Amino acid sequence: MSGSDRTAEKISWVDRDMPVMRALRERFRAETPLAGRRLSVNVHLLPSTVPLLSALRDAGADLVVCGSNPMSTDSDVAGWLGDHGMTVLAPGLDDLDGDRERLLAALDHHPHVIVDEADGLLGLLYAEREELVPTILGASVHTLTGVRRLHRFADQGHLRFPVIGIDGSPIKQLFDNEMGTAQSTLDAITRLTHPLFYGLRAVVAGFGACGRGIAKALAHRGADVIVTEVDPVRALWAVTSGFRVMPADDAAEVGELFITATGNINIFNGSHFARMKDGVTLVNAGHGNGEIDVATLADTASDSRTVLPLVTEYRDGRGRRRFLLAEGYPVNTAGSSGHPPGLMDISFAAQALGVEHLVKNASRMSNTVHQLPQEVQQHIARAKLAALEVSIDRQDLEQRQYDDQLSFAPR
Amino acid sequence: MSGSDRTAEKISWVDRDMPVMRALRERFRAETPLAGRRLSVNVHLLPSTVPLLSALRDAGADLVVCGSNPMSTDSDVAGWLGDHGMTVLAPGLDDLDGDRERLLAALDHHPHVIVDEADGLLGLLYAEREELVPTILGASVHTLTGVRRLHRFADQGHLRFPVIGIDGSPIKQLFDNEMGTAQSTLDAITRLTHPLFYGLRAVVAGFGACGRGIAKALAHRGADVIVTEVDPVRALWAVTSGFRVMPADDAAEVGELFITATGNINIFNGSHFARMKDGVTLVNAGHGNGEIDVATLADTASDSRTVLPLVTEYRDGRGRRRFLLAEGYPVNTAGSSGHPPGLMDISFAAQALGVEHLVKNASRMSNTVHQLPQEVQQHIARAKLAALEVSIDRQDLEQRQYDDQLSFAPR
Amino acid sequence: MSGSDRTAEKISWVDRDMPVMRALRERFRAETPLAGRRLSVNVHLLPSTVPLLSALRDAGADLVVCGSNPMSTDSDVAGWLGDHGMTVLAPGLDDLDGDRERLLAALDHHPHVIVDEADGLLGLLYAEREELVPTILGASVHTLTGVRRLHRFADQGHLRFPVIGIDGSPIKQLFDNEMGTAQSTLDAITRLTHPLFYGLRAVVAGFGACGRGIAKALAHRGADVIVTEVDPVRALWAVTSGFRVMPADDAAEVGELFITATGNINIFNGSHFARMKDGVTLVNAGHGNGEIDVATLADTASDSRTVLPLVTEYRDGRGRRRFLLAEGYPVNTAGSSGHPPGLMDISFAAQALGVEHLVKNASRMSNTVHQLPQEVQQHIARAKLAALEVSIDRQDLEQRQYDDQLSFAPR
Amino acid sequence: MSGSDRTAEKISWVDRDMPVMRALRERFRAETPLAGRRLSVNVHLLPSTVPLLSALRDAGADLVVCGSNPMSTDSDVAGWLGDHGMTVLAPGLDDLDGDRERLLAALDHHPHVIVDEADGLLGLLYAEREELVPTILGASVHTLTGVRRLHRFADQGHLRFPVIGIDGSPIKQLFDNEMGTAQSTLDAITRLTHPLFYGLRAVVAGFGACGRGIAKALAHRGADVIVTEVDPVRALWAVTSGFRVMPADDAAEVGELFITATGNINIFNGSHFARMKDGVTLVNAGHGNGEIDVATLADTASDSRTVLPLVTEYRDGRGRRRFLLAEGYPVNTAGSSGHPPGLMDISFAAQALGVEHLVKNASRMSNTVHQLPQEVQQHIARAKLAALEVSIDRQDLEQRQYDDQLSFAPR
Repeated sequence: MSGSDRTAEKISWVDRDMPVMRALRERFRAETPLAGRRLSVNVHLLPSTVPLLSALRDAGADLVVCGSNPMSTDSDVAGWLGDHGMTVLAPGLDDLDGDRERLLAALDHHPHVIVDEADGLLGLLYAEREELVPTILGASVHTLTGVRRLHRFADQGHLRFPVIGIDGSPIKQLFDNEMGTAQSTLDAITRLTHPLFYGLRAVVAGFGACGRGIAKALAHRGADVIVTEVDPVRALWAVTSGFRVMPADDAAEVGELFITATGNINIFNGSHFARMKDGVTLVNAGHGNGEIDVATLADTASDSRTVLPLVTEYRDGRGRRRFLLAEGYPVNTAGSSGHPPGLMDISFAAQALGVEHLVKNASRMSNTVHQLPQEVQQHIARAKLAALEVSIDRQDLEQRQYDDQLSFAPR
Repeated sequence: MSGSDRTAEKISWVDRDMPVMRALRERFRAETPLAGRRLSVNVHLLPSTVPLLSALRDAGADLVVCGSNPMSTDSDVAGWLGDHGMTVLAPGLDDLDGDRERLLAALDHHPHVIVDEADGLLGLLYAEREELVPTILGASVHTLTGVRRLHRFADQGHLRFPVIGIDGSPIKQLFDNEMGTAQSTLDAITRLTHPLFYGLRAVVAGFGACGRGIAKALAHRGADVIVTEVDPVRALWAVTSGFRVMPADDAAEVGELFITATGNINIFNGSHFARMKDGVTLVNAGHGNGEIDVATLADTASDSRTVLPLVTEYRDGRGRRRFLLAEGYPVNTAGSSGHPPGLMDISFAAQALGVEHLVKNASRMSNTVHQLPQEVQQHIARAKLAALEVSIDRQDLEQRQYDDQLSFAPR
Repeated sequence: MSGSDRTAEKISWVDRDMPVMRALRERFRAETPLAGRRLSVNVHLLPSTVPLLSALRDAGADLVVCGSNPMSTDSDVAGWLGDHGMTVLAPGLDDLDGDRERLLAALDHHPHVIVDEADGLLGLLYAEREELVPTILGASVHTLTGVRRLHRFADQGHLRFPVIGIDGSPIKQLFDNEMGTAQSTLDAITRLTHPLFYGLRAVVAGFGACGRGIAKALAHRGADVIVTEVDPVRALWAVTSGFRVMPADDAAEVGELFITATGNINIFNGSHFARMKDGVTLVNAGHGNGEIDVATLADTASDSRTVLPLVTEYRDGRGRRRFLLAEGYPVNTAGSSGHPPGLMDISFAAQALGVEHLVKNASRMSNTVHQLPQEVQQHIARAKLAALEVSIDRQDLEQRQYDDQLSFAPR
Repeated sequence: MSGSDRTAEKISWVDRDMPVMRALRERFRAETPLAGRRLSVNVHLLPSTVPLLSALRDAGADLVVCGSNPMSTDSDVAGWLGDHGMTVLAPGLDDLDGDRERLLAALDHHPHVIVDEADGLLGLLYAEREELVPTILGASVHTLTGVRRLHRFADQGHLRFPVIGIDGSPIKQLFDNEMGTAQSTLDAITRLTHPLFYGLRAVVAGFGACGRGIAKALAHRGADVIVTEVDPVRALWAVTSGFRVMPADDAAEVGELFITATGNINIFNGSHFARMKDGVTLVNAGHGNGEIDVATLADTASDSRTVLPLVTEYRDGRGRRRFLLAEGYPVNTAGSSGHPPGLMDISFAAQALGVEHLVKNASRMSNTVHQLPQEVQQHIARAKLAALEVSIDRQDLEQRQYDDQLSFAPR
């Protein structure tokens, strides 16, 4: 089988598990709701991304696609997309100098709609291409880190078009974040390091949807899981879920595997590295490459080397080894093939329908961050259930009315 | 030990597990934030309710308390409260004719603030005592059924004072609803019927927080759990959590234990009873006594009798037996002592702080349903964590700023 | 309903969940395999015991029944058995002075077969009624503590008739020990003390089948579970199952709930009491009343009193409270109705078939401790599966032969 | 990094997680308990095997090593072993014609002790090299399939030297079989096919230690798990563990993923293939390549092709696709790097100590299949616990005596 045949098979395999996207693409092809619209898309370039991009293109959009980070770019996929007529900006495919250059090039497409992994495109837009803002209908933002920032940006009165936050809605949080991150993170750690999870003392920083999924998955595999948090409600949730919760300084002393899933920075830093035992593994399953303070790790190391693919050993002055995975980038997209396609089917349907919603309704939407409408979320869930051959009940009239009025009698 | 000593011990035992309420009561006693305020409270009269009522009274409130349903009234507790100077309206303690009479009597207290289990007091207020509305500062509503209805009522423009919805906020949903309902429901079923959960085919109607907690708890005890739902997103969540999801008609044919947790009515009705096998158990763990259509169960039975305390056997025309627990009332408050006090510590702190918040801020609040403010929720969680001797991290300045601005570079 | 009607209902309720015993009793009634045999039975007198005793009687046996401990004797049941023609020796029913007297009276029945809960009857037989040994065909022993001792006794050459160890076989360990003990122990703790399991730091001593079941059930309810063990293989199993394992001295300092399930003595003793925090709960879910060193607890207390039914508070010199459940007797039979009848259906079928096997085969069996034959265990499982309407596969000829010869080729 | 450096790193990485083997190797090097002994070893040639082989060699043994199946042979490892002075018989390394030839060549080493993965070496020994039997001290057998056959062989009176069955003992069953198989099987399936486990309908054939581990791991990942069994006790265990149990014919109709873990043959065969839906995945996680009837799958296919590495698509006459992983060989050794080294540390310590035990004690052992002595198992567990920094309690004298005599009093 030739390399390009292998890539085609890989993409076709993924497509099997994405029935909602298949149906959506078919409708988009028939209705071309994005006809005449320019889209700039910032996204992980993995096999499961192809059905999203194909659906957007078949909907009539004029697309430029940018790989969201070098570690999450499958060059076979990027090549295949280029071969199939899409403009793809990705390491190895172009001679643009770096991430910033590629994002700027994507903006130079003069998009009507921006699809952003987090806030890379949008940040650069407002910082360096503000002249493009007036012609932008809206943007769709995939991750919670991006959504949180856009909320602040909107609160400060800066946002000048509507944004749909894909993250923050149940249709993404429950599936992609909690389940997808759990499966792909542990998959990647297993491939890269082959640990014995049973009995392992694991520390998970952050008990949001991603951290929760990871913590539960580790507990199910027999690990002794410790959670660190800054939010007391989530910390209490972790405690009452059976996890030990403690400050990161204390967790640093007992942990063997450390995983971040916070969307913030310096979660494990010099203060913690100094307390860690010999032989610990450091993993980011959150956002960007700043959750683990890699610079300090490198600066304080007497020695570093690659011991296995994507596994770097840093040895500190006392000879204690720390194994950093994927240079601190999210391990799930770097060290495995990302979330299972069967889940991305849901998230990418949300993404594609979010773009369609913007194109159809942007003029009537306020310049704030909007959740994907409830009925769109329900539509996706209904389509996925149908593909899984699951039927559910519907409320009858009396039941629908039941919540519509106050009762007179105690129940 | 005398009966009254036993009741005192029972209440004192509960108090051990409610450290947040103890601290709150102490502050309330010192600050008397409710001084001069009349409160009408509709609540389950169980041992764990006492710390709430004591805290409100010590805060200076002039209280009238009404038991929210006859099945959830512990007459020892009601008596003890009366002996300790509270006005208590409860079956057996007064000669009021029925639930409606008791609620009206509670309204006759001319409350400044209403604390409602669901919407019994508020419904009656708007239906029959509308003249009292102008002097009401606000209301605090405990359950989701009540909160949902108040939302509709407010949407329709009828609400004339602010309401705090205790339910719907994480501080209640995560703990009281999901964990508390799971523990108290299975506890009650065990006490009343002593089933073998391991291997039991159980059907849970509703995959909201309560249903989710019950479904997971049953699965942990070795049951084969089937979920029914009307909301496709929640149904998909149930499926991806490993549960079988099917229409209630299909579930009716295979289930052995049926539990409702929907907040709606007629969830299991004649259509389902007709399909059920001999010997099934029917349990409501949701709202009111309408989730199971008890009237139809009785009407279609050739025979019925009490076989064990709170267990009624209905035999249909073909001789098939259905065992109904607690006459269709929520089994957790009827058949056990309710949720663990250690959880009610959280919910009742929310309730008490909700009332204080209303008294202090009602004039500045819109006439809609409000969530308990984030910082109040965090305060409760922090207090509970402290009581559990759990410390957590705090974000540093750089981390706090990290979400405050858009990034320029991809991460 | 009269008291005796209520007892009849209680027993009839239990019978619903014991289909294997119902079928067995029917066969026994038809075949009377124990005709003319005298049996002395030492057993918990709970509702679920009735089908066992009825089956043995209907099999033709001449029975004397002795309640195995005062805390596990349901006086309604004992009375009902007496009213139905059985000779029952139980506290409150007779004027025998104590446990020893009752056991001796049971031996005075000159049994052909002894059915012993642990080794109470057999120990007394060899110590004080050795003249009865020659006419004894054999004995059936229910619990692991008893079976272990009988093994040593046989190893030392003292045993003079065959013993069937019901415990130690999969048909008992997997169901009664692991599942039954988990459900009934947590049920009893809940009824007696109403704890918040979610987030509770619980210590389980012993990771045999009973301890394992309890530890897993606690973890499922959100507790943070610590295990103590003396056997390194089981300790490693606990660690790799995700539990923290530590010496009891260390566990004593952090635990809030302590549960023993070891079959041995002094598991928690003065050394541990001295380290425990204020407010801990002490529970035995194993054997006898010696697992928790109650004498030392009492001796070192400055004060003790009953605060709730079956809950004794011991206050030490420093004012720290320890709450002991059921005076240190197994909490599951003392504080609830014991294991679910649906599981006792399996164990008591094993017990009844063990007695039948002894009567038919004792003369051909060595004077050692025997497991219940594999085919009898399979028969019970098959009957239970049938009652649960579960079908399974059977091996075909080729598959049966597959394990019968060495392979020539690597596979 | 050169290829050989990479292999060295790979082996060194594995060694980090095998502290028990490191200590054992050190003792073996000092004591050379196998000095002058010839060993023929049949084993998977994976990185984690190296510490076992190195330990045996350092113990003084004269080794010939044969890869147990072509799919479980890592050629880098085989090459590395050859480079380090061991005689390795493995596909690609030698010109022996097939598995049988390699095994015979291993026997031509005239071993004193045989270490067999299952019964490949032993079967061939008795069938074609019986003249070697008299000089053989004994054999150690790794898997349950092998152990079961040796038991039958011994029962039939054919065995002429003692065998130690590593499998069947807790030290292997609990860790390697249940935990190792679960982790490596799901890891391999994920790498090869990237499925969405959440919500997947999975069928596990066999509820022995391996199947149990797999079934539980799938349930933890959100799958809806069905179990098939032929043994009623294990089937009842599966049911009471919350799994649905049904005949394979019924399971075939609803499953999406099928995994065998039985140690037998034709578990999924033509009868089942005919009932399966389009798109199912077929996986063997048990023994050999006969659990799935691959020949029938091929014979009844209208078409077959490799769609991804180790994934073969068979399309039946009606166009329904079945995806077979690893040609029906155990997927965990074929599609991943096998069990986690941290677990093989335990199993290989058992294997190495089993060989030492044979060399020291064979003359005093009967010609049957022996379990690894209890104290050896405890020694391994103690060493592993020490490496994990876990301390446990020891019984005191009184506790040790407690089980040694019958009690006189009821407890």
